Amino acid sequence: MLAFENDYSEGAHEKILQRLMETNRVQQPGYGNDEYSQSAKEKIRAACQCPNADIYFLVGGTQTNALTIAAYLGPAEGVVSVQTGHVNLHEAGAIEYTGHKVMPLPAHDGKMDAGELEIMLRDFYADPTYPHMVHPGMVYISHPTEYGTLYTKAELQALSAVCRKYQIPLFLDGARLGYGLMSVGTDVTLPVIAAYCDAFYIGGTKVGALCGEALVFPRNNAPKRFFTQVKMHGALVAKGRLVGLQFDTLFTDDLYLEISRHAIEMAQYMKKGIAQRGYQFHLDSPTNQQFVVLDNEKMKKLEKQVRFSFWEKVDDDHSVVRFATSWATRKEDVDELFKLLD
Amino acid sequence: MLAFENDYSEGAHEKILQRLMETNRVQQPGYGNDEYSQSAKEKIRAACQCPNADIYFLVGGTQTNALTIAAYLGPAEGVVSVQTGHVNLHEAGAIEYTGHKVMPLPAHDGKMDAGELEIMLRDFYADPTYPHMVHPGMVYISHPTEYGTLYTKAELQALSAVCRKYQIPLFLDGARLGYGLMSVGTDVTLPVIAAYCDAFYIGGTKVGALCGEALVFPRNNAPKRFFTQVKMHGALVAKGRLVGLQFDTLFTDDLYLEISRHAIEMAQYMKKGIAQRGYQFHLDSPTNQQFVVLDNEKMKKLEKQVRFSFWEKVDDDHSVVRFATSWATRKEDVDELFKLLD
Amino acid sequence: MLAFENDYSEGAHEKILQRLMETNRVQQPGYGNDEYSQSAKEKIRAACQCPNADIYFLVGGTQTNALTIAAYLGPAEGVVSVQTGHVNLHEAGAIEYTGHKVMPLPAHDGKMDAGELEIMLRDFYADPTYPHMVHPGMVYISHPTEYGTLYTKAELQALSAVCRKYQIPLFLDGARLGYGLMSVGTDVTLPVIAAYCDAFYIGGTKVGALCGEALVFPRNNAPKRFFTQVKMHGALVAKGRLVGLQFDTLFTDDLYLEISRHAIEMAQYMKKGIAQRGYQFHLDSPTNQQFVVLDNEKMKKLEKQVRFSFWEKVDDDHSVVRFATSWATRKEDVDELFKLLD
Amino acid sequence: MLAFENDYSEGAHEKILQRLMETNRVQQPGYGNDEYSQSAKEKIRAACQCPNADIYFLVGGTQTNALTIAAYLGPAEGVVSVQTGHVNLHEAGAIEYTGHKVMPLPAHDGKMDAGELEIMLRDFYADPTYPHMVHPGMVYISHPTEYGTLYTKAELQALSAVCRKYQIPLFLDGARLGYGLMSVGTDVTLPVIAAYCDAFYIGGTKVGALCGEALVFPRNNAPKRFFTQVKMHGALVAKGRLVGLQFDTLFTDDLYLEISRHAIEMAQYMKKGIAQRGYQFHLDSPTNQQFVVLDNEKMKKLEKQVRFSFWEKVDDDHSVVRFATSWATRKEDVDELFKLLD
Repeated sequence: MLAFENDYSEGAHEKILQRLMETNRVQQPGYGNDEYSQSAKEKIRAACQCPNADIYFLVGGTQTNALTIAAYLGPAEGVVSVQTGHVNLHEAGAIEYTGHKVMPLPAHDGKMDAGELEIMLRDFYADPTYPHMVHPGMVYISHPTEYGTLYTKAELQALSAVCRKYQIPLFLDGARLGYGLMSVGTDVTLPVIAAYCDAFYIGGTKVGALCGEALVFPRNNAPKRFFTQVKMHGALVAKGRLVGLQFDTLFTDDLYLEISRHAIEMAQYMKKGIAQRGYQFHLDSPTNQQFVVLDNEKMKKLEKQVRFSFWEKVDDDHSVVRFATSWATRKEDVDELFKLLD
Repeated sequence: MLAFENDYSEGAHEKILQRLMETNRVQQPGYGNDEYSQSAKEKIRAACQCPNADIYFLVGGTQTNALTIAAYLGPAEGVVSVQTGHVNLHEAGAIEYTGHKVMPLPAHDGKMDAGELEIMLRDFYADPTYPHMVHPGMVYISHPTEYGTLYTKAELQALSAVCRKYQIPLFLDGARLGYGLMSVGTDVTLPVIAAYCDAFYIGGTKVGALCGEALVFPRNNAPKRFFTQVKMHGALVAKGRLVGLQFDTLFTDDLYLEISRHAIEMAQYMKKGIAQRGYQFHLDSPTNQQFVVLDNEKMKKLEKQVRFSFWEKVDDDHSVVRFATSWATRKEDVDELFKLLD
Repeated sequence: MLAFENDYSEGAHEKILQRLMETNRVQQPGYGNDEYSQSAKEKIRAACQCPNADIYFLVGGTQTNALTIAAYLGPAEGVVSVQTGHVNLHEAGAIEYTGHKVMPLPAHDGKMDAGELEIMLRDFYADPTYPHMVHPGMVYISHPTEYGTLYTKAELQALSAVCRKYQIPLFLDGARLGYGLMSVGTDVTLPVIAAYCDAFYIGGTKVGALCGEALVFPRNNAPKRFFTQVKMHGALVAKGRLVGLQFDTLFTDDLYLEISRHAIEMAQYMKKGIAQRGYQFHLDSPTNQQFVVLDNEKMKKLEKQVRFSFWEKVDDDHSVVRFATSWATRKEDVDELFKLLD
Repeated sequence: MLAFENDYSEGAHEKILQRLMETNRVQQPGYGNDEYSQSAKEKIRAACQCPNADIYFLVGGTQTNALTIAAYLGPAEGVVSVQTGHVNLHEAGAIEYTGHKVMPLPAHDGKMDAGELEIMLRDFYADPTYPHMVHPGMVYISHPTEYGTLYTKAELQALSAVCRKYQIPLFLDGARLGYGLMSVGTDVTLPVIAAYCDAFYIGGTKVGALCGEALVFPRNNAPKRFFTQVKMHGALVAKGRLVGLQFDTLFTDDLYLEISRHAIEMAQYMKKGIAQRGYQFHLDSPTNQQFVVLDNEKMKKLEKQVRFSFWEKVDDDHSVVRFATSWATRKEDVDELFKLLD
C-alpha cells in the first residue's frame, strides 16, 4: 500500500544506520557527554554561525516544546501561539500541564502576523486590569507551519522586533525545519533563524533520523539549570550517543539539507501532477506537505489504496487531505499516486 | 466620591457584623467543624431542595473555580468555557496552573450556546486525532455572566442535557448568584440550578458578606478527598466559623434574597434613568451590572466624580463602562449619578 | 466545655470587630488598594524597621507558604525544611502541588540546625551527580516551631549566614509569631527577623484576627509579578480591606504584642501549674503551646471535659497532648483545667 | 580506557541493529501502531503469562516513572518509596513536578520492608489529622534496586498483600530487570512480578537496547486515557517502531534473558576476583552492579585507567565505588581490571 500520510513512516537514512553499526561497541559516557554529541554540536554551531550556541539533544517535538516553554516562562506567564499551532491543538495539553496558558492569535495559513502580535501586546498592557491576567511571556511559531507554509526573512524580522520591544523571547518549532530550509525561493536560513530567535529546534525525527531534535539557544542563553530541567521532564536519555550520533551524521557533508531537498523535489513534482489533474489545493504550500481538496467519494475510494491524512471538512461533500513527502519518498510511488488520482 | 465600580466596595451587611459580635467568644472547633457552618449547610440544603448536598465554604471565587475544576478534571482533560469566562480571562491562569487547559467557545453576551457546545463535543470525538488532544472534561458557565446576563431555565436544561449526553459535569460560577435569582422575570431558582448542575457556588463576597463562597455538590457528589484538596489548594481556613456564620446569617429569613432584591431594584432604577437620559447600553442586562456606552470626553469628566469600571473600547471616541449596584447601594447616590450624567 | 485545643477557637479581638463596624459603610477600592491596607503596611514597615518592605495580606498560612515558596523556587528546585515542618507534614502536599520537592532535614525540638544545613548544601554540590537531583533553592523555618520552640538571634544569624553563602533565600513561617516575640527571654524581635530573613509572615489568624497573614519582603524584594501570582493561587480577596483593617488594628498601639503577651502569661501560668501537679513535659516550650505527657487512662477521662490536641504516642500507655493558650484565654479556665488534672 | 561505570556505555545488541537495517524502508504507521510494536506486545504478554496486559513502549526510565505515578495518583496523593529510591533521589524532582509528594520509608540495602510499609499505612489512618496530610496513593519499588539487590518472591508477595489491603497499587521499576531475572538463585520471574504488581516496566536502555522501556499493566488495567497522557508528558514518539522493534527483537528467542545472563556471569566472575584480592564489598549484590570499598589513594590511582562510579563516602579515607557489567561486557576487560586491582 502506498503511504503519503506523513514524513515518519520509514526508519532512518541509511548513513545513520551505518554509523550506528560502526560505533556500536565504542564505550562512551552517558547523558550527552559522548564524543558524537560534542562533534554534532560543533557542526550545528558552524551551520548556524553561532559559535557560542548552547545545544541540547532531545527525543521528540512535544517534549522539546513543553520543556523549552516551561523553562522560559515565569509564574503567571503564558505562551502566545496561533490558534492552529501544534502546542495549542495537538499536544494533549502538554504546555498547560506545566502550568502555563497557551494564548491564541488568529492563524493566517498557519502563520502569525507581527502586526496582530503587537496589537495584542499593546492592548494587554493598556488594559488596567492586566495584573489579574496571564502575562504573555513567550512567542511560539513553527517553521514550516502545521500547514506547510513558511515565514519570509522579513516576517521573522518583524516578529523578532515586536518580541524584543516587549522583551519576550521568540521560540521557533522546527520539527520539519529541513523542508523549510530547502524550499524553493525561501530566504530563511539557519543563521537567519539563529539571528531572530532566542531558541529554536532542528527537527530530526521527521527529517531522516530515527528520533531526535536539536534544541539551539543561539547566544549561550540556555535557561538556568537546563540540564536538570531536561532530567525533570523525563527527557534525558542515558544513551545520549543515540541522538548525538544521528545529528553528527545529518550535519556531515550537508546530509540534512541534501535529504530535505529530495523531499522538496518530490513535493513539487507531486504538486504539479495533482494540479494538472484538476484538483484544488487548500492553500499554496512550498514545502513537503500538500493539502488537497477531494470530494468525499473520491477520498473514500482512495483510502483503500493509499495512506494519507484527513485534515478537515470543507463542506458536506468535500474534505481537505494531506499528502506528505519525505527524505524517503520514491518517485515511482508518486507516479503511482497520480494513476490513482486520474 | 460616588462609587459604582463594583459590588464589593463596602464591608458586610450589618446583620452579619452583629452576629460576629454575638458569637465572638463562643469556642468552636476549627476547619469548618463549627456549629455555624453546620447550621448554614442545613439552611442551604433546604433552599436548594437538596437534602444530601455536600457543601464547602471557601473564601473567594478564583479559588473556588480552580479547586473545583482541578478536582473534577483527570489528566489531559480541559474545561470548556466561553471566551469571556472569568476562568479564561481574569484569573491569571489559575486553571492552567493546576495543569488544565481552558477550552474556549464563542460568547453570546457572555453566555454559552448549548448547540455550539454539542457541535464542539461531537466534532471532537469525530476527529480521528482526538487522542492527541486535550479532552473536554467539564463545562464552566457563570450565572449571572461577566456581562450581567442570565440563562433561562430552558437554556440551563439544554446545556445540562448536552453535558449528560457526553458525561461531562456542568459547573456554575455563582459569584453574583443572588443578583441573578432576584432578577425580574428570571425562571432560574436555586432548586433549578441544583437540578441541572453537578456543582455550583453561591457567592457571598459580592452579595453582602465580608468574604466567602458556598460551594454546593447537590447530590452528595463531592470529588474524592475534597476536604484534603481544599487544604492542598491553601483554601482551608482555620476559623471556618467566619464563613460559616456569614452564610448562616445570609440564609436566615431570606436575607440573601432580600439584599439581592434591593440591588436589582437599584439597578432597574439606574437603568431607566440612564436610558431616559439618552445613553446607549452595550447590552441589555437584567442584573446589577449595567454596561453603558459613553463618549470618551464624558467618561474622562465623569471619572473625577464617580468611580466606575472601564470595560472596553467601542471605537476611538467611545467606550463601554460598567456601573454596578449592590446590597449596599443607596438611592440617593443613584440620583446623584443621574445629575452627573445630565 | 473547656477548650485548649488550639489558638483559633474564638473569633477576633474585640477592637477588630469594633473597627469593622465603624468602617463598614466606607467605600473602598478592592484587591488591597483600600486605605486600611495602606495604613497597615506603613505600621508594619515601622515595626520591622524596614521602610522599603513589600507587604501582602493573605488569608491563611498554607496558602502563604505555598505561594511564597513557589514564587521563589525555579524549576527543579526544592525547599529545605525540617522533617516536622508544617510544609512537610501538615499541608496536604500544597508545596508539591506547585511542582516542588520538600527536602527534609532532621528536626531538633522542631528546629533546624545551621551546621546540618551547611553540611547538606556542601555535600549536595560535592556529589558529582548533583545535576540529576533537585537543587535546594530555599530554606523554610517556622518561629515558633510546630513544637512551640524558638530560635535565638544567634541561631537565626547562623542559618542566615549559611543561606547567604549558598545564595538561597531564607523564609520564616510566623503563623504564631506574636507568641514568639513575647516569649520570656527571647532576643528575637521583628527587626531581627527582617534583617536575617528574605521573606517572613506575621500570623494573624492564630493571634487575634478573624483571618489573615501579613507577608513581608523586607527589602523591596518581592518576587516579580507577585500580585498576579497571588491571584493565580486563588489567594487574592476582593475585599482586601478585611485583612488590611485587621492588621491596621493589630499594629495600632501595639495590640499585636499586648494580646500575645497575655497568651504567654497564661501559658507560663499553665506550665507552672501542670509541673507542680507532677506531670512531665515532652519538651520545654517557652511559648503558647505546651506539650504534656499523660497516661492514656487520664487522657481518656480528660477528653470528656476538655478539648485538647492529641500529638503523638509515647509508648503503649502514654501519649503527648497539646494544650494551647491564646489572646483569648481566661485565667479561670486555666484554673479549671488544674482541677481536672488534680 | 576500561569502562565499568554503568550498563549503558555501548550502543545496542547487534541483533537489534540488524533488524533496524532489515526493516528500515518498510512503511509503518506512527505512534506505536506499527506491526513490530504489536508483535513485541504479544511476545511480552506471553513471557509474563498475561494475555490481557496493556503494554506501552516508552523511551526512558524517569519518563516512565513520572508518567505512571502521575497517572495513578489522585489529587493530594503521594507515592511511597524507600529513601534511596530513584524517584526520590535521582530524578531531579520529576515526580514532584507532576504535583505529587514522594513519601520516604527507610531503605534496607535499597529494599522496602513490607512490615514497615504496613505500619506507615496503619499509623497514617490512625492519626486523626490525616485529612490534612498527603495520602499514600501508590507504592514504588525497584527490582533490582539502586544497590543491585533483589526482592524474593515472598517479599514481593508481602508488599503486594499490604498494598491490596490498603487498596494502593504497587509499581515496580525494572530499569535493570533482566539482570534481576537472571540472577543466581532468584525465585522472581516475569509472571511472579505480573501477579504481584499493578504496573511494572521491563528496562531496555540498560539491557541491550539503544533506548526504550516496556511498561506493563498486567490485567488490562492501564489508567484511563493513558495514550493521551503519554502524549501530554512528551513521551509519545512518532516513530514508535524504534522501540517496538527493539523489544520485538529482545523477546525473540529469549534474547533479553540470554544477554542478561551474560552480564550476571561477568558480574559473578568480577565479584569473585575482587573478593580474592582482599577487597571488601559495601553489600552483597547478586546482580550486575558491584559496590566495592576502596581506599581513596587506590581509588584516585584507579581513576586514571578505569571508568567507574563513585557511590558514597565511607570515612575520610575510604569510599564506595560501583563497577557494573552489562550485556556487552568482555571477559578480557574484567581480567584487565583484576590486574589494576592487584
